[in-house]
Amino acid sequence: MDDRVRRHAELLVDHCLEVTADDDVVVIGSQNAVSLITALYGVLGERGATPMAQLHDERARRAYQTAIDPDDVSTSAPRLAAMEAADAVVLISSTTNPYETTAVSDAVTDAIDAAYSPILDERLDNRWVITVHPTAGGASRARMGTDAYRSFVYDAVDVDWERQRRRQQRVADRIDAGETVRIQCGKTDLTMSIADRTALNDGATRNMPGGEVATSPVVESVEGTARFDLPIVYRGDRIEDVTLTFENGVVVDCAAGNEQDAMDRLLGHDAGARRVGELGIGMNRGIDRATTNTLFDEKMAGTVHLALGFGFAECVPEDQHPNQSEIHTDMLIDLRSDSLLTIDGDPIIEDGDFWFEDA
Amino acid sequence: MDDRVRRHAELLVDHCLEVTADDDVVVIGSQNAVSLITALYGVLGERGATPMAQLHDERARRAYQTAIDPDDVSTSAPRLAAMEAADAVVLISSTTNPYETTAVSDAVTDAIDAAYSPILDERLDNRWVITVHPTAGGASRARMGTDAYRSFVYDAVDVDWERQRRRQQRVADRIDAGETVRIQCGKTDLTMSIADRTALNDGATRNMPGGEVATSPVVESVEGTARFDLPIVYRGDRIEDVTLTFENGVVVDCAAGNEQDAMDRLLGHDAGARRVGELGIGMNRGIDRATTNTLFDEKMAGTVHLALGFGFAECVPEDQHPNQSEIHTDMLIDLRSDSLLTIDGDPIIEDGDFWFEDA
Repeated sequence: MDDRVRRHAELLVDHCLEVTADDDVVVIGSQNAVSLITALYGVLGERGATPMAQLHDERARRAYQTAIDPDDVSTSAPRLAAMEAADAVVLISSTTNPYETTAVSDAVTDAIDAAYSPILDERLDNRWVITVHPTAGGASRARMGTDAYRSFVYDAVDVDWERQRRRQQRVADRIDAGETVRIQCGKTDLTMSIADRTALNDGATRNMPGGEVATSPVVESVEGTARFDLPIVYRGDRIEDVTLTFENGVVVDCAAGNEQDAMDRLLGHDAGARRVGELGIGMNRGIDRATTNTLFDEKMAGTVHLALGFGFAECVPEDQHPNQSEIHTDMLIDLRSDSLLTIDGDPIIEDGDFWFEDA
Repeated sequence: MDDRVRRHAELLVDHCLEVTADDDVVVIGSQNAVSLITALYGVLGERGATPMAQLHDERARRAYQTAIDPDDVSTSAPRLAAMEAADAVVLISSTTNPYETTAVSDAVTDAIDAAYSPILDERLDNRWVITVHPTAGGASRARMGTDAYRSFVYDAVDVDWERQRRRQQRVADRIDAGETVRIQCGKTDLTMSIADRTALNDGATRNMPGGEVATSPVVESVEGTARFDLPIVYRGDRIEDVTLTFENGVVVDCAAGNEQDAMDRLLGHDAGARRVGELGIGMNRGIDRATTNTLFDEKMAGTVHLALGFGFAECVPEDQHPNQSEIHTDMLIDLRSDSLLTIDGDPIIEDGDFWFEDA
């Protein structure tokens, strides 16, 4: 077995989920992830824990989506029961073909999302982590060779997470203390209030890799224009070169380089879909390029992302609430050259470097 | 998709399990079975049913078995909960390497068997079917090329099961009405009573392929010598060329061509392991050779099998009980040449042909 696969499994079991001998752990992945699942079974066995594996196969999912009448979609009682009985969950993304489940009817997609909702709620009540096992399909999406992509994934995963968390806390402290964020880069000039907001420091517990600091800004405070450098993925559509203009926290203008219809559908999903739920700052230096995978892209050091859709209750004062929506779609701004992000006028990121880093 | 895979899925969903729109169906298989699982998801979607797939991977299982301390083994609560919530279950055997989980310690095997027992009980309370998806590993075990093995599997599966059931009922009627079975072939000369016993007619509901007629003989009536022509598989060991002598229904002498220790462990498992729980008669003419896979071998037309271990309550009068044991190990006698099986002196199988078939 590749030592990196074994190390990945140990990080998931010990660092992310802190598994002990009494734990029932559900592992969900595709057939491509069998080497990681095998490593997880070994590590879980060593810890005395009890594994169960669920198969998530893209082609099978597509076959079901194509065949089912939306009126017949219902929540899988065995999946729900398994999730209720689990203590911890590992979700492994390991695509063969990231386009396998595109172009499914909205009626079926909506019905399946609704049917999945109680299973999602149960999962969120457990300890859980989302990760990636590198595949040829993932490498293709990243436009890289498979071996190079494997190295890329493990560089992002095999990090000294305690040290990383300490570095990130320096940015989190500035968010906790700050009032106003301004982002300037090319066409982008955006301001928002983070007054009374607290930061989440992602040291790779629920995402592996981790490596971001995030908060939910004051919803109505977002003002200005933002150009998003990386494609936005919404229900399988890749929407490129999107520029949004915000007034009083609401998107009032939207220009997309392609797929304008898909972008308009995203914005029209519900009232919260035109408002910002998250400001995130990527700080993982192991991620040096975008790979069309949000789990990695949003952690890339020197980028920031906004999410249209729901925000995080942990980040807002108890008497307020974050943006409400069914969706949460991340959109990246690349600050790695000729850019400035300030909090209350103090530079936090300049040309991609944090103030405490050597330029 | 291979039409034969689609047809296999339809038979499992419609013929074996009679799935309807309200059913939650759990599909358990390895990554090798993804094409069948995909076909099942399509057919289940068309019927309005809800699928869930569990991954059963041999290498992952071995990694867990090797790592776990027997004292830490426990029943997977999510697997148990999923089985309780299921209406129907498809178990797919699709090996990469049938030797993957051999040579695991008895202590771990016993602990895992005990932990699995409540899950097995729940499965047996549902509708369920066991089948095979043909793989290179299965072909290797059968000593065939992969494409030839695929054709072999589908010849055994894609049968007119109503016609097959009618053919089998002719033998079942003779068992229901008969008193004494005698089997003669080479060194084998064995008699047993089937008085008051009823036959099971396997028209492929719980096994796909099906194709046998079976009963549980009067335990203490088994007398004589039987030589088993095909290897007996017990916990991964292949025991070849076994001859057993029965007196008053109990094995009093056992000679194995190899692995005598494994055979002695089998006979010593519990009191019922030295007694016969089943007499089965294979009638599937699509199965023309042994492939070291009991699911197929025991259905091969012109063979009979005895099982040491537990018998079937359905075959025994209500005031009696079949043989009791934790195990059920099938052992085949090949009657395809120079042989005779009679019921009350009437030939049922002669040189491999049933009395109603053209020789």
